[in-house]
Amino acid sequence: MSFNQNKSNRRIKMGMVGGGPGSFIGEIHRMAARLDNQIELVCGAFSSDHQKSKQTGEDLFLDPSRVYENYQHMMEIEAQLPPEQRMDFVAIVTPNHLHYGPAVAALKGGFHVMSDKPATVSLEEALKLRDVVNETGLLYGLSHTYLGYPMVKQARAMVTAGDIGQVRKILVEYPQGWLSHFEENSGKNKQSEWRTDPARSGISGSIGDIGTHGHSLAEYISGDVMTEVCADLNIFVQGRKLDDDGSIIFKMNNGARGALTASQICAGEENGLTIKIYGESGGLEWHQQQPSTLIFKPLGAPMQFLSAGVDKTYLSAEAHSACRLPAGHPEGYLEAFANLYTGFAEAIRALNENYKSHDLIGIEEGVRGMAFVEAVVKNSQSDQKWTKI
Amino acid sequence: MSFNQNKSNRRIKMGMVGGGPGSFIGEIHRMAARLDNQIELVCGAFSSDHQKSKQTGEDLFLDPSRVYENYQHMMEIEAQLPPEQRMDFVAIVTPNHLHYGPAVAALKGGFHVMSDKPATVSLEEALKLRDVVNETGLLYGLSHTYLGYPMVKQARAMVTAGDIGQVRKILVEYPQGWLSHFEENSGKNKQSEWRTDPARSGISGSIGDIGTHGHSLAEYISGDVMTEVCADLNIFVQGRKLDDDGSIIFKMNNGARGALTASQICAGEENGLTIKIYGESGGLEWHQQQPSTLIFKPLGAPMQFLSAGVDKTYLSAEAHSACRLPAGHPEGYLEAFANLYTGFAEAIRALNENYKSHDLIGIEEGVRGMAFVEAVVKNSQSDQKWTKI
Amino acid sequence: MSFNQNKSNRRIKMGMVGGGPGSFIGEIHRMAARLDNQIELVCGAFSSDHQKSKQTGEDLFLDPSRVYENYQHMMEIEAQLPPEQRMDFVAIVTPNHLHYGPAVAALKGGFHVMSDKPATVSLEEALKLRDVVNETGLLYGLSHTYLGYPMVKQARAMVTAGDIGQVRKILVEYPQGWLSHFEENSGKNKQSEWRTDPARSGISGSIGDIGTHGHSLAEYISGDVMTEVCADLNIFVQGRKLDDDGSIIFKMNNGARGALTASQICAGEENGLTIKIYGESGGLEWHQQQPSTLIFKPLGAPMQFLSAGVDKTYLSAEAHSACRLPAGHPEGYLEAFANLYTGFAEAIRALNENYKSHDLIGIEEGVRGMAFVEAVVKNSQSDQKWTKI
Amino acid sequence: MSFNQNKSNRRIKMGMVGGGPGSFIGEIHRMAARLDNQIELVCGAFSSDHQKSKQTGEDLFLDPSRVYENYQHMMEIEAQLPPEQRMDFVAIVTPNHLHYGPAVAALKGGFHVMSDKPATVSLEEALKLRDVVNETGLLYGLSHTYLGYPMVKQARAMVTAGDIGQVRKILVEYPQGWLSHFEENSGKNKQSEWRTDPARSGISGSIGDIGTHGHSLAEYISGDVMTEVCADLNIFVQGRKLDDDGSIIFKMNNGARGALTASQICAGEENGLTIKIYGESGGLEWHQQQPSTLIFKPLGAPMQFLSAGVDKTYLSAEAHSACRLPAGHPEGYLEAFANLYTGFAEAIRALNENYKSHDLIGIEEGVRGMAFVEAVVKNSQSDQKWTKI
Repeated sequence: MSFNQNKSNRRIKMGMVGGGPGSFIGEIHRMAARLDNQIELVCGAFSSDHQKSKQTGEDLFLDPSRVYENYQHMMEIEAQLPPEQRMDFVAIVTPNHLHYGPAVAALKGGFHVMSDKPATVSLEEALKLRDVVNETGLLYGLSHTYLGYPMVKQARAMVTAGDIGQVRKILVEYPQGWLSHFEENSGKNKQSEWRTDPARSGISGSIGDIGTHGHSLAEYISGDVMTEVCADLNIFVQGRKLDDDGSIIFKMNNGARGALTASQICAGEENGLTIKIYGESGGLEWHQQQPSTLIFKPLGAPMQFLSAGVDKTYLSAEAHSACRLPAGHPEGYLEAFANLYTGFAEAIRALNENYKSHDLIGIEEGVRGMAFVEAVVKNSQSDQKWTKI
Repeated sequence: MSFNQNKSNRRIKMGMVGGGPGSFIGEIHRMAARLDNQIELVCGAFSSDHQKSKQTGEDLFLDPSRVYENYQHMMEIEAQLPPEQRMDFVAIVTPNHLHYGPAVAALKGGFHVMSDKPATVSLEEALKLRDVVNETGLLYGLSHTYLGYPMVKQARAMVTAGDIGQVRKILVEYPQGWLSHFEENSGKNKQSEWRTDPARSGISGSIGDIGTHGHSLAEYISGDVMTEVCADLNIFVQGRKLDDDGSIIFKMNNGARGALTASQICAGEENGLTIKIYGESGGLEWHQQQPSTLIFKPLGAPMQFLSAGVDKTYLSAEAHSACRLPAGHPEGYLEAFANLYTGFAEAIRALNENYKSHDLIGIEEGVRGMAFVEAVVKNSQSDQKWTKI
Repeated sequence: MSFNQNKSNRRIKMGMVGGGPGSFIGEIHRMAARLDNQIELVCGAFSSDHQKSKQTGEDLFLDPSRVYENYQHMMEIEAQLPPEQRMDFVAIVTPNHLHYGPAVAALKGGFHVMSDKPATVSLEEALKLRDVVNETGLLYGLSHTYLGYPMVKQARAMVTAGDIGQVRKILVEYPQGWLSHFEENSGKNKQSEWRTDPARSGISGSIGDIGTHGHSLAEYISGDVMTEVCADLNIFVQGRKLDDDGSIIFKMNNGARGALTASQICAGEENGLTIKIYGESGGLEWHQQQPSTLIFKPLGAPMQFLSAGVDKTYLSAEAHSACRLPAGHPEGYLEAFANLYTGFAEAIRALNENYKSHDLIGIEEGVRGMAFVEAVVKNSQSDQKWTKI
Repeated sequence: MSFNQNKSNRRIKMGMVGGGPGSFIGEIHRMAARLDNQIELVCGAFSSDHQKSKQTGEDLFLDPSRVYENYQHMMEIEAQLPPEQRMDFVAIVTPNHLHYGPAVAALKGGFHVMSDKPATVSLEEALKLRDVVNETGLLYGLSHTYLGYPMVKQARAMVTAGDIGQVRKILVEYPQGWLSHFEENSGKNKQSEWRTDPARSGISGSIGDIGTHGHSLAEYISGDVMTEVCADLNIFVQGRKLDDDGSIIFKMNNGARGALTASQICAGEENGLTIKIYGESGGLEWHQQQPSTLIFKPLGAPMQFLSAGVDKTYLSAEAHSACRLPAGHPEGYLEAFANLYTGFAEAIRALNENYKSHDLIGIEEGVRGMAFVEAVVKNSQSDQKWTKI
């Protein structure tokens, strides 16, 4: 990851909401924030149970006085600290229904926000949040991890450069198998509990959780916008309350068509996100489980395997600056995640010091994601073929 | 390929309709018929142009007196030859619109039929052909090549044996790129000419040509029947008359759901047929371009790669008997095709000598395939979500 | 496989020595000879047991009068048949120690010879056989199957064209696992019996059987000659009489260096022949188990995957003419083998009709192969580092 | 990465020698040390040029007073700081010839040492260093990155558990292409400068740099010791002073045999380290470029692909505790490296608090590595076949 040379002489300070004991995503955000040494965790409200929160603070070697009882308290107290001490931004890593509240509180308290995806639990919330972001003029980042991978950036750059011509077809598959059985009440898997609970997760399971990754990848790489969907959502596991499987046919604004399957009952699959995108003169293919390779299939010429790596001069500037190591030294999920965090730190510096940095994945993508979910769910309940997003 | 030990002391005799100069599929049928030494090509009506037909006969070292002016003539004359000389069956390798006529003529002339797929150019014809097959009591085989692969048979056997539990989800992708540009009138590609011409190919391009392979694989492996479809067919190449792309969501009779994409404008793709099938307790995955491997993903245990090969005692009887070589000695498309032909020869012997052989892929599959195509085309033109097959 | 347009109006006639019941390689030769319809099996001496031989003849629908008691008899009688009936060439598919005798008898009887590899059971025999070939002026072909693969031909063409620059390093691995246990006397595996018996197989097991494939590939692709070896041969399975494993370091005549492992105790491996060849400006990699792909690694540019296929215009003429199907329709081991047979038939026609055809893999390669085996065995028993071939 | 629950309430403090501007490996060590939040960089002597060193300190947000002029100074001053402030250990990330000096100085100053590999520039130094380690009783860790990968630990555990039976054959390939041309004096690549310079790198190039990784992997996974080598080292690039290529045949102490190629002129390769290990009843295969997969090939049963991941209950305890993420979320080189650092921090805590932790990769492996390099170089210059290590 390359950094702007003009960076100020200090780390960016992060507070965190969520990420207490048993959280899957909290420690991932922390490792990602830590990796490039540009961000320092200084405070948190890690759990609604203050004892648990304190335990997490201790495990993280934090100053106990900056482990707060709740996020409201955190915003309030931190805002009163001298600028050189107080947090610069808040990372939100709670379940979906608890994204909106902390985000609004942080922004209104004068803190930038980096939120786990999805932005909110509903489109309505997302639209309101967008207003708050726009009013405050503060930064809002959304952790669409897969958009942090170098070869996803390379794919986007190649489409933009016309390497595959006008895009015609987009195929996304996102099979997982971890919800093949009913484990919601087993107490063993905190993830499966809240992710299948409408009150905490929202109106969709598989589409909200992983379908949105497919949606954002399709839009990010193609540079286009999804406009209509036709969907079939299903609940395969008895007793489950939200869809655990869905297949979608879609249209993009430029005439491209596509298909997207997101399913969590594909027994035996791990995290098999794949995207294939075809234009008039070639295709691109990327597999999240082998993220350092981008397959390029020019019409009439041999297929090419492009590699991530700081030594790969054929990469686009955006892809290249997202690499840390020479090719053949695999970087993975945490490094992609770290690219989002380091980019966010850079954006804060750029704002503070008035220079230009790359665009963030932010509230616009968050709104589009929630609109996608609502359109898919609505279509799935309807007899009509197409629903506009 | 293992053979019944009771086989009669002669090769099965084949006549051919179609397969003259410039034909892609004709020589494939002939190589397939030849490979296992159970079938002998004895006569043909290879082209509507008799000169061309004679040339093909000569290239094949055939007796010139058995190269006929047309298929009607062939049926007539061959029927008058003594039994030990005349053909046993007719292979039909013409464009789609010329399947029905020769098939009916052959059956009525007393000859078994092995037809290139699809069975006919329309569902109506397919239903009429089924009546003729049933009336004559003769054998009718359909060359669904991919069903001849050992590991496709293995997948079917494993589903039947319950190795993945009740089937829930089926994902089929069949991307090709060879119709990315308009070459219909270039004179260079006889294939692209007739396959995109409704008069010769039928009401659908991509779905009729390759979507039907996906449909038959899904039904064959799962042992279930596709009952409803929701489809989006497209013509991406200007001037083309038939769909060159389609994505379909579907329902199976047992509650399983699926998605199928068949597209011939996926620039850079070769013949990328892939099927993934997931049950309650595991998944299976097969890639036509690496056909000797079947990936088995049992829930909670390591993924397995099963190999085709006569030395693989873990294979099902059907898969095992479809292999000729030890594992690691790749067999491919022609061997799968040969399995269909050798199986057909075996079925003829079984009928003649009154023993039992494996079931053929035949007219029932042909009818279901045409019903699938018609339902897909109808749904694609409609605003309604689901169309019954 | 493309054929010369001037071909005579008949198939080339083949007799066979060996290939009776229980033979692995005999039926492979027959399928290979059959596939392209250029060769017709007309006679044979399939087994030393005449009853078995007759059974094989019957299974092959041969005229019983042309199933001979032994190969001497076959040469004698066939030579007396009128030219339009008698065999053109003899295929030899016996164990190694029975290659030389039939080959000499055939050549002296006026018949061309296509022999299973290795040419003979010793270098001494190979040299004598070369003399006979040269004296008679007849054709001698050696079935180095892997040299029949299109993408091996493509690799050779690319090295010749300078696509990787001057060759520096060659890495060959040929792991198999089928001799991991002692099954020589089990009666179950006729292969393991004779292949581990010095009287029938020669002075080496693993190197003679599969190491020679690695040797011939390295020489064929690089266009260079192996000149010195340093070897470590081992017998891992108790009771075995010949090496079942070997690793070799070698030098080529142009300064390139390499390493070759051929082992039959690599438990769990099938037929994992792989070659990697590196020049000053790029590398090539080919895996026999995925034979339709050649990986090209140009220095400083993305890795390329070249595909076999009649539609691949970027292939060299030799590679292209070795394909039968469009890319994505896998061809395999039998097709590669058929390329050798069809090429041999073509060479016979070229000789008869006095035109030029491609060079055969023949007795020179046979001699070099036996010299390689003897040098490796000699070196392995020595304390000296290098032994000249 | 799981941690001991009894960890003390502070991070372990690290000082660093080397890793100034232009260093490749320095920032890798720092990212690895940072990832799991168990280690804090507090001081350094990053460059022999103090200005450069200060710049690095500033980039790392270090207290300028703890950026030292040289390592001697650092040891001296740090030793005088109060225990709660001073560094606990020294990370050494200089070129090879500067490993020994700082390591001895650190140990004699009372600091544990984590050193980049190889341990020293010669066997003689390594033996002396071992004495110092043993005398001081302090911890010494060696950054053999590849031993930090979960699936390498899994391979070791499976061999130990007897899953492949007695080991017979080990095949290691380590092809790189980055030294295909002479860039030593180009000024562009600091790496290629010192790594090909005997004064800084030692008596071997390719073997010292990457062959040692192959050696340590072979010993670590098999649990055995390499005892004899036969080697062919080469310099392919004109003007280069150290071997850029080598192939080795070797013997292990239990009777297993193997081959190892380490080459830096394999044009087009990235970092293609691969190990295959075969026992009496199965094989294992691991590719560094796809590190989260371990291929297991049990004799007579389907090949298995084991995946790294915290959700994979079939993994050994050692492999499992080396994972941070669920399967399908790729971890890579930095995570493997972080496992070494976090394990080292844990070892320091274990020593301080008197509990038991896992064994470190340390000075014994360092000595064996240098003995391997010296034996290989000696053998390569000799006419004798085998040299004892």
